[in-house]
Amino acid sequence: MARIVMKFGGTSVADLERIHRVARHVKREVDAGHQVAVVVSAMAGKTNELVEWVRTMPKVTGASSPFYDAREYDTIVASGEQVTSGLLAIALQSMGIDARSWQGWQIPIKTDNAHGAARIMEIDGTEMIRRFEELGQVAVVAGFQGIGPDNRIATLGRGGSDTSAVALAAGLKADRCDIYTDVDGVYTTDPRIVPEARRLKKIAFEEMLEMASLGAKVLQVRSVELAMVHKVRTFVRSSFEDPDAPGMGDFDNPPGTLICDEDEIVEQEVVTGIAYAKDEAQISLRRLSDRPGVSAAIFGPLADAHINVDMIVQNISEDGSHTDMTFTVPSGDAEKAISVLNANKEKVGFDAIQSESGLVKVSVIGIGMRSHAGVAATAFKALAEKSINIKAITTSEIKISILIDGPYAELAVRTLHSCYGLDKS
Amino acid sequence: MARIVMKFGGTSVADLERIHRVARHVKREVDAGHQVAVVVSAMAGKTNELVEWVRTMPKVTGASSPFYDAREYDTIVASGEQVTSGLLAIALQSMGIDARSWQGWQIPIKTDNAHGAARIMEIDGTEMIRRFEELGQVAVVAGFQGIGPDNRIATLGRGGSDTSAVALAAGLKADRCDIYTDVDGVYTTDPRIVPEARRLKKIAFEEMLEMASLGAKVLQVRSVELAMVHKVRTFVRSSFEDPDAPGMGDFDNPPGTLICDEDEIVEQEVVTGIAYAKDEAQISLRRLSDRPGVSAAIFGPLADAHINVDMIVQNISEDGSHTDMTFTVPSGDAEKAISVLNANKEKVGFDAIQSESGLVKVSVIGIGMRSHAGVAATAFKALAEKSINIKAITTSEIKISILIDGPYAELAVRTLHSCYGLDKS
Repeated sequence: MARIVMKFGGTSVADLERIHRVARHVKREVDAGHQVAVVVSAMAGKTNELVEWVRTMPKVTGASSPFYDAREYDTIVASGEQVTSGLLAIALQSMGIDARSWQGWQIPIKTDNAHGAARIMEIDGTEMIRRFEELGQVAVVAGFQGIGPDNRIATLGRGGSDTSAVALAAGLKADRCDIYTDVDGVYTTDPRIVPEARRLKKIAFEEMLEMASLGAKVLQVRSVELAMVHKVRTFVRSSFEDPDAPGMGDFDNPPGTLICDEDEIVEQEVVTGIAYAKDEAQISLRRLSDRPGVSAAIFGPLADAHINVDMIVQNISEDGSHTDMTFTVPSGDAEKAISVLNANKEKVGFDAIQSESGLVKVSVIGIGMRSHAGVAATAFKALAEKSINIKAITTSEIKISILIDGPYAELAVRTLHSCYGLDKS
Repeated sequence: MARIVMKFGGTSVADLERIHRVARHVKREVDAGHQVAVVVSAMAGKTNELVEWVRTMPKVTGASSPFYDAREYDTIVASGEQVTSGLLAIALQSMGIDARSWQGWQIPIKTDNAHGAARIMEIDGTEMIRRFEELGQVAVVAGFQGIGPDNRIATLGRGGSDTSAVALAAGLKADRCDIYTDVDGVYTTDPRIVPEARRLKKIAFEEMLEMASLGAKVLQVRSVELAMVHKVRTFVRSSFEDPDAPGMGDFDNPPGTLICDEDEIVEQEVVTGIAYAKDEAQISLRRLSDRPGVSAAIFGPLADAHINVDMIVQNISEDGSHTDMTFTVPSGDAEKAISVLNANKEKVGFDAIQSESGLVKVSVIGIGMRSHAGVAATAFKALAEKSINIKAITTSEIKISILIDGPYAELAVRTLHSCYGLDKS
């Protein structure tokens, strides 16, 4: 017997039939004797509809500002998860399973006061655990929400139901947190580009963090961070498979990908996966004055303008007085970034700005590369053989990121996937 | 300066444009210096959609019973008002008015544990009043809901937003409770039947109670009862008029109908209005044994079967041993009522059941009739002149109800409206 948190996203609860399928997944685990808490998102499309109403309301009143109160946004948008939690509780009860819905304020899931993008501070699982143990009751929890210090509903930001699930798993000291989604696990790379991509049995938290932030949209980044900090064994699996298919209830070896501490991964590969991020723009500052504080003078104003800077490359200057600096931003932000830089030209001190849009960043990710030399060299050699030009490189302990021209994206991903032996055997 | 509770129903908040119009009604009162709490229903159609999901969910799981947990029903259905309250708060803020939404559990509006049809036990208006006085803040309250002793959302039953508004007005000791609806007041009778019907300036609580329960669907009966008990001056007016039209903000004499204590009605008419209820069925028990407990034996089982019995007529028995008993039920319940009675035939003791469907009950209502003789005689004479046959009569202190054949409904209403001088002058 174990304690499991199960999480189902918006497409998994999009209508009553799908909510029934979710209930069957839950029933399977209950029948196996586990204690279960289920976290649900709003029905697909519902959150968007509510957000649209919130954004349109000020315009309808003829207000000059599009401002809206984040506390009211939270009140409105959280209603989507409220509905799904109640419907799933009814579905489970109809199938003979004791269940009840829990809103964030009832548990409570206490958050900070940052309405619209609140962080979870504390979860009190006492009553839920008492009900697991005394009644065998399933807890159906509205995801994405908690209650702020102002006693008002606070939402965790888009994709926040993943975070709810992982935080609840930590709070309940659950044995596992199963994230049911519309893919059946985490792959070595995007199978739409590389048909030979393999589903990983296990991936380390740190690797998943890189995969998630690089555009493998399986899990929200914050939820992976949280899982890493609290060492929550998190399992990514499909909600669309038949809940009663063979092996689905296998506790030790279910179908999907386990995200876990690296200690749990016995046969560590050198490279775990290849991620990519499209539509990057490169911005280079030429003959930048090389003095303390120059980086702050560049990136401070960009941050203030809410421009998300990704790769940053700066070479050691040759003459000790001037250098070149290159960084990337999403293509859509390039123009804005250049105008921010030009507005600060005097303060920063540079000769010229060069930029290029439509680039792609491909990344080689693997905890194993910490202890293996030559991983980067392998990538460079493989790309060179395909005549793919490398525009910039950054590396971390477990990642090599390479900026290339957009049209070469798929070729580069396939080449890297193959050169590290990740293709299906 | 006064304290006003304003309530807007589902058709008044059906879309963002209508919510803007509601906000303009609120702004008018705020600009006049009043302290305002607004109670809102769910957007028209929303509650029905949510209720439909709740009812369908057990069928989708293949459950043999259509049972659903009323606590989950409440959680799901209350989300409709949650959304509207947030949207109206945003609309008001966009118009430069300090406002915030309040859910039932936040105020709190404490109810009993009868989920789905809960009764309000206590409203704590302390914080709301503090915000009226210190911030001039408008309170936007989600109607129809409170929080039960189990710390879960409890709804007040259909139409419960009227009840929320009146209870809140009592709790806040408001000077007036304005119910904005899709009609512009309470009329002497249904204007669709009698074009000469007049809008009443004032009507006493007791009269309104009879009007409401007899099918004049302006206000929910429970809200009128509550207003009567707490002496809440309740004002029925239209939400569809231009919020800034002349006279709309007139505190002493606004357009609409005031429901108030009879003491406040100086020129009391003998008859205030004519109500009617269609689709009544009459059931008569012939040669009923006339002994103590026989009424209980009849109406106990009918109540257990949730059949709502209306008029009851029993004559003094001629021979002291047997009598006839007639009562009415909604036509849709007639068949069920008869089978319940037949199942209890031995216990009750009667010879035969006769029944007739498709009848109409017309009622003459007026507090003034308490002190005026001949009111009933006037009705009987007027109906006789039109050759309308009276099937049964019941009377109370302020009401005479007459059961007639369905096809005569409109003629009877027009005749009675005219014979008491209620037609427009």
